[in-house]
Amino acid sequence: MALYFVGLGLYDEMDVTLKGLETIKKCDKVFAEFYTSLMAGTNLERIEGLVGKRIVRLGREDVEMNFERIVLPEAKERDIAFLTAGDPMVATTHADLRIRAKRAGVRSYVIHAPSIYSAVAVTGLQIYKFGKSATVAYPEKNWFPTSHYDVIRENGERGLHTLLFLDVKAEQNRYMTANEAMEILLKVEEDKKAGAFTPETLVVVLARAGSLEPTIRAGYVGEMIDEDFGRQPHVLIVPGRLHIVEAEYLVEFAGAPEEILESV
Amino acid sequence: MALYFVGLGLYDEMDVTLKGLETIKKCDKVFAEFYTSLMAGTNLERIEGLVGKRIVRLGREDVEMNFERIVLPEAKERDIAFLTAGDPMVATTHADLRIRAKRAGVRSYVIHAPSIYSAVAVTGLQIYKFGKSATVAYPEKNWFPTSHYDVIRENGERGLHTLLFLDVKAEQNRYMTANEAMEILLKVEEDKKAGAFTPETLVVVLARAGSLEPTIRAGYVGEMIDEDFGRQPHVLIVPGRLHIVEAEYLVEFAGAPEEILESV
Repeated sequence: MALYFVGLGLYDEMDVTLKGLETIKKCDKVFAEFYTSLMAGTNLERIEGLVGKRIVRLGREDVEMNFERIVLPEAKERDIAFLTAGDPMVATTHADLRIRAKRAGVRSYVIHAPSIYSAVAVTGLQIYKFGKSATVAYPEKNWFPTSHYDVIRENGERGLHTLLFLDVKAEQNRYMTANEAMEILLKVEEDKKAGAFTPETLVVVLARAGSLEPTIRAGYVGEMIDEDFGRQPHVLIVPGRLHIVEAEYLVEFAGAPEEILESV
Repeated sequence: MALYFVGLGLYDEMDVTLKGLETIKKCDKVFAEFYTSLMAGTNLERIEGLVGKRIVRLGREDVEMNFERIVLPEAKERDIAFLTAGDPMVATTHADLRIRAKRAGVRSYVIHAPSIYSAVAVTGLQIYKFGKSATVAYPEKNWFPTSHYDVIRENGERGLHTLLFLDVKAEQNRYMTANEAMEILLKVEEDKKAGAFTPETLVVVLARAGSLEPTIRAGYVGEMIDEDFGRQPHVLIVPGRLHIVEAEYLVEFAGAPEEILESV
């Protein structure tokens, strides 16, 4: 009797590890949540086909409010798998769930999976040089968050790259594009005027990470904002100081302007 | 004809994804390097057994100096897999190899895998709050690097966590322990005296990430330095400002002193 947090990885049902699949198969019941991120290359039916079991899909409220009622009682009786996109503990919600399980007397284990946190290295940007990351959220009435801009500025001052996650509103089937994120950031720039995100800022877009041919594009905001990066999920990266190998990689694999080689 | 960089994940041969295994199986020849990190829960023979193929193990010189002679000519004729521990592009060497492949006219693909960069979230520390990471290297004659200390200090000033990788000298079968890393950092503190790493600093040790029961321990350097964390690989984390859920998780799962709950 235990609860297994199993990561499904980045893109499609083939991104789970052998350990993850074996664990799901031996569990007596399988829950899953997909509201914290999008797996664009698959769907629930295909995952069910792979694992050979029915999967109970949970919404945000089921997980955040009703975990003690829906999931934990089951995990006291038998082995339960709880599936999430990416690597399980990356979503802060899931760390909290693990605490709640322990306090209810339920043992839990974590089975890791590919995550955007390391996959972003496929852009050629060196991963140890990423600073704090941030999320660009859709502004709402009376709520226009701008902390992502400050993170870009602070990282930039130290020469560090910034990984920006884009808003996921799964219940509305709304997944922010890199273009929308650039628009939002340009608006914040108009207000704060610190020069951290302007039409001349070099950015990198990574779309559909985990697929065999993800889109990787690098260029200046003024041009990139009108480009089509294909289907979501997208992430947006604002590079800090570039090492020569990073710049070369961006030119070779992301169509970056060759002039960036001169500034490193 | 292409070159597939396939990640093997963190700990044992079951940490590869289904996509990774399928790719390796369809390739005509398989190379692997294990000098950039340690997979403690497996060995070459077990991986060969899993994939059903002989694997040619390459050393540092084969990869960094002789890639054009050993690997690339093969990849012009047929499908070649190049296996690495963790997620492939995380090692900066591998991004460089991908550039060299492209310039030689060889197409390449990346198959992601679990990485310590996201797995570190199993400590309960929120991953978006990690700043730049650094590596603690074994000091050598006339070479005592101290930049890791400055990274801890700079991240700390912003309230950010620091993930420290520990030196890997695969050819000497030498993998730094968290204890050795703490000793080195205390020596740098003696010299720099900025208070960034003292016996009173709270640290978190994660050992054997990716195994079902990794060691996760949190406590003050003065006590942790004498603890036994079991076999390598180890990573050492210096947390920045803790959120209450982070502190609770460290108390529940890492044996952190309960007094840390009062300081958040």
